[in-house]
Amino acid sequence: MKFKTKKLSISTGGPLVVLVYESDATTLGIINGDRVKINDYTAIINTTDKLDVIKKGEVGLFYEMSKKGIKNNILVDIIPANKPHSVEYIVKKLNGKRLNDVEIFEIIKDIVNGQLSQIEITYFVSASYFHGLNFKEIVSLTNAMIKTGDQLNFGNEIIADKHCIGGVAGNRTTVFVVPILAAAGVKIPKTSSRSITSPAGTADTMEVLTDVSLSVEKIKSVVNKVGGCLVWGGALSLAPADDIIIKVERPVSLDPTGQLLASILSKKKSMGATHCLIDIPVGRGSKILNKKKAIILKKNFLNLAKEINLKLKVVITDGSEPIGNGIGPALEARDIFWTLRNDERRSEHLLHKGVYLAGQLLELTGKCTKGKGEVLAKELIENGKAYNKFIEIIKAQGAKITSPEKIKLGKFTQKIKSLVKGKITYIDNKTISRIAKLAGAPSDKLAGLYLHKHKFDKVEIGDDLYTIYASSKTALNDAVKYCKSNLGFEFK
Amino acid sequence: MKFKTKKLSISTGGPLVVLVYESDATTLGIINGDRVKINDYTAIINTTDKLDVIKKGEVGLFYEMSKKGIKNNILVDIIPANKPHSVEYIVKKLNGKRLNDVEIFEIIKDIVNGQLSQIEITYFVSASYFHGLNFKEIVSLTNAMIKTGDQLNFGNEIIADKHCIGGVAGNRTTVFVVPILAAAGVKIPKTSSRSITSPAGTADTMEVLTDVSLSVEKIKSVVNKVGGCLVWGGALSLAPADDIIIKVERPVSLDPTGQLLASILSKKKSMGATHCLIDIPVGRGSKILNKKKAIILKKNFLNLAKEINLKLKVVITDGSEPIGNGIGPALEARDIFWTLRNDERRSEHLLHKGVYLAGQLLELTGKCTKGKGEVLAKELIENGKAYNKFIEIIKAQGAKITSPEKIKLGKFTQKIKSLVKGKITYIDNKTISRIAKLAGAPSDKLAGLYLHKHKFDKVEIGDDLYTIYASSKTALNDAVKYCKSNLGFEFK
Repeated sequence: MKFKTKKLSISTGGPLVVLVYESDATTLGIINGDRVKINDYTAIINTTDKLDVIKKGEVGLFYEMSKKGIKNNILVDIIPANKPHSVEYIVKKLNGKRLNDVEIFEIIKDIVNGQLSQIEITYFVSASYFHGLNFKEIVSLTNAMIKTGDQLNFGNEIIADKHCIGGVAGNRTTVFVVPILAAAGVKIPKTSSRSITSPAGTADTMEVLTDVSLSVEKIKSVVNKVGGCLVWGGALSLAPADDIIIKVERPVSLDPTGQLLASILSKKKSMGATHCLIDIPVGRGSKILNKKKAIILKKNFLNLAKEINLKLKVVITDGSEPIGNGIGPALEARDIFWTLRNDERRSEHLLHKGVYLAGQLLELTGKCTKGKGEVLAKELIENGKAYNKFIEIIKAQGAKITSPEKIKLGKFTQKIKSLVKGKITYIDNKTISRIAKLAGAPSDKLAGLYLHKHKFDKVEIGDDLYTIYASSKTALNDAVKYCKSNLGFEFK
Repeated sequence: MKFKTKKLSISTGGPLVVLVYESDATTLGIINGDRVKINDYTAIINTTDKLDVIKKGEVGLFYEMSKKGIKNNILVDIIPANKPHSVEYIVKKLNGKRLNDVEIFEIIKDIVNGQLSQIEITYFVSASYFHGLNFKEIVSLTNAMIKTGDQLNFGNEIIADKHCIGGVAGNRTTVFVVPILAAAGVKIPKTSSRSITSPAGTADTMEVLTDVSLSVEKIKSVVNKVGGCLVWGGALSLAPADDIIIKVERPVSLDPTGQLLASILSKKKSMGATHCLIDIPVGRGSKILNKKKAIILKKNFLNLAKEINLKLKVVITDGSEPIGNGIGPALEARDIFWTLRNDERRSEHLLHKGVYLAGQLLELTGKCTKGKGEVLAKELIENGKAYNKFIEIIKAQGAKITSPEKIKLGKFTQKIKSLVKGKITYIDNKTISRIAKLAGAPSDKLAGLYLHKHKFDKVEIGDDLYTIYASSKTALNDAVKYCKSNLGFEFK
């Protein structure tokens, strides 16, 4: 049957979808969700009975389908087609059966190619959640995610990478570790995410200083030139299935362990990593609440890494309070400068954790003997090599700012003072993040807060606890108002 | 924050959704799937980073949202809002907890009001599938489905209804039972569906003869005048949650028992039914494959009916071959005429099953004593009262055709003959349906096939098995071609 094409411009967010009138679908013998072939592309049919942008006899092409080069306002044949085999495999998993390598690859491939609808992907996620993925399935999933995306290849060199499970405010250790490793001569092409729910992602912080949206080619040339990079991973097509799956997990905050493991390690492998360090912060207020859970997660990571031929070290760290003093893109960027150049305004927490993690990775990559990593990392800070490397990286990516003095902060500020005398027993990551976000972070890069005190510090009444920075009076007031009832600090 | 509205015309198929640019969403502090308030309506945010129909600073209103009376090209405030509580309850069910009456009502209400996304509804369906719904939850679901839709009210009268689980070709017993019951003085306002995957639904068959898209008011007036109706239920808002849920079940062919029970009985109650008969056809080639499953289903129906105050009888019938001779809207309509007026061309199978079902329902509604139902039903056929009532119903709904002689059939025909001599041991519903659909049914109402033989009939080589009717040479050829390798008959 012939239909006239009409471009709809609207994106489906992934799947190849075309829209036809319900009565046209009946004539074709198909229903909503069935597949059709148009010009060699298989698309999912959406039907409508509404007074819509398309008329009877027309086929609406959503953005992804129109990008396949099908012209507007031409006649095309619509031929009913079979559902992809991956739908059968999803049903198989729904019914509690195990999937093999080929079946998982088909599902992931079809997710990436827009051959599965969001409803079908949701069934795959919920089936994986209910019945769990066994170890073999997780290995298959990881390999499928790698194979269905771009992969960087640096030849036979050692390539380092690191990852933090997250949930800790101001935890910018990545921006610390990369220049140290690069200064030690270990290649470290690092991609990071932008903030989703936090006041800043590593990519947001780096964007204050330099360009972070680099192509795969540009990443390779930067890393080959200066030994490391700190870029945004979002625009690259590394393990793209993961981002699509996360989209359907978020509405109900699902995060099945199997998916988490595959998601993280597939991205590392895709970046060409051979040696990787994973940091699992543990404690009240962080993502992983207790050590027992962290140890199970660690074991899972190590087992999976072995299967995909990745040398992995996992460290469990204290995640019970914010790291660093600055929270928010610009404030965190300033912290990094100060700490890397060993300024007196450095963040001792960031220095300590950064040196520890860099040391672990230096040992793992064989740059020094076991137990000597932290010494080497400290040396690279103290002799200025790490700082110089950081400036090199910023410049290679397309520098905006190369010194802390040039970083601008929100011009509306307010100091939040202690109303009690005592010892700080707890600083809540979630509350601190919330305040920084109310002040405007991360979309306002100049906004956030600066911690003057940390856990175990003693305070007197009237001592500054933190300073809030905002670019508008309203945002400052919103954040200050929130502080009045949610300080984020506990005392003894 | 102020955004300029832009109507998108495209329908979401239910949920209230608005579209904004990803960077605008970040500024608002929200992500894809979050909720926002616009002019007192809560909508789901979809974000896009594509060169789309909307620009930065614009908010795209999908059809359902623009129907709320929000004008095009005006400035509106977008205020981040909380997710509805129903999302929490879906997560609760995902985690294997039982839901109470209030929680299930909230979910169903939000489904009907477009407050839940398809992804969230899919999680509800899969959670109900994995963890099952216990009896209390099924009762809550049924009541919620009834309360969130329209309900017909015929006062204190006895109102009969019937339902067939389906899967049997040419099973038009409904069109047989309604006039018999109405002729006996029992009100029977019957809604039916159009075909989804079969060659004809009851509504498709009736549409050959009369108007089937009646409003609730028109249905009431028809039923009060002639005692019964045979209309399409699809355009009415009876238990509308059900249709939305079915949409997300279809892609993976899920049909959890709890949902099935609630779906059927909520529709019956919404039509005002007090007494209802359910027919479960069982056997090879039908939906329910064995008697054991049918008996469990029967018990579930009876228990649920008691809770919602519906007098119910469930019969288990033979579903292992097509009922009636005609398959396809016009051919089935002709069968009904012939059989109801006791013509010599009547279908014995249809007569037998129709009289049986009508008899059961006459007994259930107290129109006769137990064991006398079939006798009464037969009498109403033989004295012409059922036939006259059928004509009355057709006329009351807006007659097109009131005698079998006026029914047109596809002008291209081909007789399919037996190549063997023997006894017919099996006729496959699915194959027969497929052939009728290839010939053009149901969108071509004149297409289908006519069975000359039934199970247990003896045939000689060259005997006619069935005649295919089509409106085009191509459709006829498609159907005939398929017959060559899939006859649909087995012999001994």
